[in-house]
Amino acid sequence: MENIFTDEYFMKKAYQEAELAYEKGEIPVGAVIVVNDRVIARTHNLTEMLNDVTAHAEMQAITSAANFLGGKYLKDCTLYVTLEPCQMCAGALYWSQITKIVFGARDEQRGFISMGTKLHPKTQVVQGVMANECADLMLRFFAERRK
Amino acid sequence: MENIFTDEYFMKKAYQEAELAYEKGEIPVGAVIVVNDRVIARTHNLTEMLNDVTAHAEMQAITSAANFLGGKYLKDCTLYVTLEPCQMCAGALYWSQITKIVFGARDEQRGFISMGTKLHPKTQVVQGVMANECADLMLRFFAERRK
Repeated sequence: MENIFTDEYFMKKAYQEAELAYEKGEIPVGAVIVVNDRVIARTHNLTEMLNDVTAHAEMQAITSAANFLGGKYLKDCTLYVTLEPCQMCAGALYWSQITKIVFGARDEQRGFISMGTKLHPKTQVVQGVMANECADLMLRFFAERRK
Repeated sequence: MENIFTDEYFMKKAYQEAELAYEKGEIPVGAVIVVNDRVIARTHNLTEMLNDVTAHAEMQAITSAANFLGGKYLKDCTLYVTLEPCQMCAGALYWSQITKIVFGARDEQRGFISMGTKLHPKTQVVQGVMANECADLMLRFFAERRK
């Protein structure tokens, strides 16, 4: 039997979170954290609503997943996030020792790859899952803002 | 008349916060954020108590100060923190566009300077204020843990 729990399957959940952010006028980034094919955190960017630069989707997801697990290390967890994490989020992921990060669109300007932020040596990274859809949502958001 | 509101004055407040962390069995790092010589946020590391890698003193201070100010940018604010910020905290400070960061002890291993994390171009950094006291508190904490 085919495994339905692919990276695309969970990235779609993250994308749905990004759409919720979009509807609220937030930069549309969404995230979920998964352990054993089970979603244990789903969050979206809330920096405007909370007036808080630390309220990125990933930061909330890390806090929420640790709360669910009852421990601060995200062992055997995978983060799915629609946009490449920034320095702050990658720095938090470093501390969490998360097992895997899957992101959609690249952020050439402010993403952790260009910025040179170090992840934990244990952490595996997969990029480009639903990259076009994730990038399109961002582009639509900023195009609408400029009107 | 001499200005009592020196960097040492406010670092002492941050140090007092670090002592509170120490008493709770948390890695002893404390922070305050100051605007116009007024402390608007005072926080200490709570990663153990909250089971949350994102609960560094600086992260809480950024959220708390933004809440006080009613806006997410920390214009004209100075962060005093007993230890050099890590990648995550420096990444958050980057987004906050904070005016000035004053830290006590260096963190050669995991501090943002060695890690190469970028701050906002507007942000001024002062280091070494009460560096010995801040470092001693950390050393005492880890020596006690090893017993």
